Amino acid sequence: MNKQAVAHYLCRITAWGSLLFLIPALVSLFYGEWDSLKVFIEVAVGMAVLSLPMAILKPKESDMFAKEALMIVALLWVIYPVAGALPFWLSGEIPSFVDAVFESVSGFTTTGSTILTDIESMSHGMLFWRSFTHWVGGMGVLVLAIAILPANKATMYLMRAECAGPQVGKLTPKGRTSARYLYIIYGVLTVALTVLLILGGMPVFDSICHAMGTAGTGGFGIKNNGIAFYNSKYIEYVLTVGMIVFGVNFSIYYLILTGHIKTVLRNAELRVYLIIILLATGLIMGSNILIHPDPEENFRSAVFQVSSIMTSTGFGTDDYALWPEFSQMVLLMLMFIGACAGSTGGGLKVQRIIIMFKSVKKFVRQTLSPKCVYVLKGEDKTMDTATVHGVQTYFILYTGLLFISLLLVSFDNNDFATSFSSVVTCINNIGPGLNKVGPTQNFSFFSNFAKIILSFDMLLGRLECLPVIVMLSPSVWRNKF
Amino acid sequence: MNKQAVAHYLCRITAWGSLLFLIPALVSLFYGEWDSLKVFIEVAVGMAVLSLPMAILKPKESDMFAKEALMIVALLWVIYPVAGALPFWLSGEIPSFVDAVFESVSGFTTTGSTILTDIESMSHGMLFWRSFTHWVGGMGVLVLAIAILPANKATMYLMRAECAGPQVGKLTPKGRTSARYLYIIYGVLTVALTVLLILGGMPVFDSICHAMGTAGTGGFGIKNNGIAFYNSKYIEYVLTVGMIVFGVNFSIYYLILTGHIKTVLRNAELRVYLIIILLATGLIMGSNILIHPDPEENFRSAVFQVSSIMTSTGFGTDDYALWPEFSQMVLLMLMFIGACAGSTGGGLKVQRIIIMFKSVKKFVRQTLSPKCVYVLKGEDKTMDTATVHGVQTYFILYTGLLFISLLLVSFDNNDFATSFSSVVTCINNIGPGLNKVGPTQNFSFFSNFAKIILSFDMLLGRLECLPVIVMLSPSVWRNKF
Repeated sequence: MNKQAVAHYLCRITAWGSLLFLIPALVSLFYGEWDSLKVFIEVAVGMAVLSLPMAILKPKESDMFAKEALMIVALLWVIYPVAGALPFWLSGEIPSFVDAVFESVSGFTTTGSTILTDIESMSHGMLFWRSFTHWVGGMGVLVLAIAILPANKATMYLMRAECAGPQVGKLTPKGRTSARYLYIIYGVLTVALTVLLILGGMPVFDSICHAMGTAGTGGFGIKNNGIAFYNSKYIEYVLTVGMIVFGVNFSIYYLILTGHIKTVLRNAELRVYLIIILLATGLIMGSNILIHPDPEENFRSAVFQVSSIMTSTGFGTDDYALWPEFSQMVLLMLMFIGACAGSTGGGLKVQRIIIMFKSVKKFVRQTLSPKCVYVLKGEDKTMDTATVHGVQTYFILYTGLLFISLLLVSFDNNDFATSFSSVVTCINNIGPGLNKVGPTQNFSFFSNFAKIILSFDMLLGRLECLPVIVMLSPSVWRNKF
Repeated sequence: MNKQAVAHYLCRITAWGSLLFLIPALVSLFYGEWDSLKVFIEVAVGMAVLSLPMAILKPKESDMFAKEALMIVALLWVIYPVAGALPFWLSGEIPSFVDAVFESVSGFTTTGSTILTDIESMSHGMLFWRSFTHWVGGMGVLVLAIAILPANKATMYLMRAECAGPQVGKLTPKGRTSARYLYIIYGVLTVALTVLLILGGMPVFDSICHAMGTAGTGGFGIKNNGIAFYNSKYIEYVLTVGMIVFGVNFSIYYLILTGHIKTVLRNAELRVYLIIILLATGLIMGSNILIHPDPEENFRSAVFQVSSIMTSTGFGTDDYALWPEFSQMVLLMLMFIGACAGSTGGGLKVQRIIIMFKSVKKFVRQTLSPKCVYVLKGEDKTMDTATVHGVQTYFILYTGLLFISLLLVSFDNNDFATSFSSVVTCINNIGPGLNKVGPTQNFSFFSNFAKIILSFDMLLGRLECLPVIVMLSPSVWRNKF
């Protein structure tokens, strides 16, 4: 492994990243929260000072391949959340360092699970910072860096290593141009959502925070009882549409902007994604009919929760822990399915589910008629064996890591539903789970050990396992893999 | 599909199968239970009369391929359990027909989940019949038929369709000879276990029943509080060893008998199987140290439960619902892993776990160094892509069916641990689960709908999905697949 190049890129991105802390600093300044302001500036300066020397020094060899890119991504996703935890911890607003890291990892990975028991007691600066980490983490800290930094042949490797989903939607041949397009679309949509929320009577600060939380499909709220606080049908519908929009593959928006409407309409993932949302909403409405006799309320509550869970956002308007078990199981299923590939959402991704479904169908057919040759079809082109095999192997890796985490988290001796759903919600970057980690609960009661495991799960989910595994392989560090 | 051939084979095997009911009839006769005796003979005569005409009539074309074989196996596994339920139901000992079918499916699939709330109130004939279904189902109703019936070129297809595991241990080139060897080894081991249990002071009837339940890795007990009733360390250790023995691939015993000891020692699956048992026992002993301060008791209780769950038997000596959650999670993990391929046990099978683990390892390596070619190695020969792909696809199919079942069972509105573990324990043919279906509980409280779903799951697990899917595909019935 080219360690020099890895260190150089890491420091360069971190040096630029220190600027991110100045944005919440402005918020603290605006609200006159001097303690928070001081902390944000300290962290920004500290990061810049520590990373600048290596960032300026050019490495002897600048060659970079998949291994180096995966390592950079993994380390960056450790550095950012840890640095992001410092303001919480140094300001004393989250006294435990492990808690602060959990909250920060949950933010950057757009999970939205919180250890806070009283969210409203936080300062404006910190609340903004929490939601802002969602926004930055949603599209990717590296994609942001690529969008800003000068173009380089290594960027495609880096984007591939960070971007979620079985395929990177190659918008344009140059990684940098793609990254810029992505962030422009992302930014415009976020602003649009903010405006719509403000029009619904939500305060400006709240609107910005919730728009960022929705855009990143994160789900950190700023009120103790979540979106229910605003008690507004309009806001709930706007957020529902917002969550669905951010759960779509961003290439779709690029295609729409460039006038390729036909390609968009032919997109199987988009179709399946929308069908699953409709179907799940219908199933839950049927199951919840006794709880919500009013059809509009029943629909609103169901479609909000379905969109929230499926896109891995995790906002809540209704306590689904009180729903019939069938409704809860539908939500659990959505947790695994997740949003579209190439969106800011988590989970396995609809695209992978489609590929796995097709591969099973082919397998059954081929067993029945061994002499026929069946070919798996993707969008328009034939789906190659390598992609199918990759998706299948990813699923196995994912399941394996899920079970190992479950085993480790069970040291805490909670009940099965709590342990299982906390791992599921973290590895899929959702937010709430079942029982003790249900939608009205929080993660504060876990031991530090469990919190560290769950933080790892969030990283595994956000980075889709590989970078984290690479980082933990001793052989990679020995240069001998 | 060659429907005539399917009907012919089905009836031929069913006609022979009617003889199975005469064995519990003898038990009823011995104990003077005239009601049970009458019922067993009625069912035997009924089956014979209904199936003989088609069994004698030769089909016009006798060609049979994978599709026909899978269909025969699937239908046979519906006919046998339903016929097997008739004695329970007709005798009135299990008044509900759905309950009787559940119990019978649970028996034949060697699951061992029961709907009985008072086992000891059953007649000897019925208790024997329950355990006997385990014994017959363990090695397979078809393998038994093949062992008895005249040799035929279709037998290999049939064995392949019923035998568990990613690979059929081809003992001898001829399916019929293999089937006979298998049943001879199976029979001798069962008799040996019976004798060992009798030597430990267990009554003869109880010994026979438990030996059959162990051999089929079924787990039906005949006492309300299971193996704990006998309160004998000797019996617990004998059963532990017995369960481990029947969880091994039967090819191993054939190899030992034919003097291929070196091949046995090189067998990766056997090694991993034994290592997992040791490891899981160690982990549970560590976790249970406060409950069982006495080391011998701690070891005995842990190794018994580990062997019982991993081999999918499901006997109990200790209520693991009272164990720390970590111990329970270790057991849950074992439920998924299961026994060795080619044994009477259920679960995913150790062999599949090994293949999946290797494929993940290869995938990670290849991502890091794309230019190298890595080859997966099986026992001695190179493991081909088709096998790996088959195992991966099977795992996805299995997980998909598990989640669909969970959704359907959740209509009953139980808690998550109950619904999830009931599906897991049924699809892996174990027996007990967690919470309301824990080791001291039973399945009687489920709705008829849930009982039918769980019965299907047991069949899916025992037959490894494919035959059941074939049976349910309308296209196969339309001859046009």
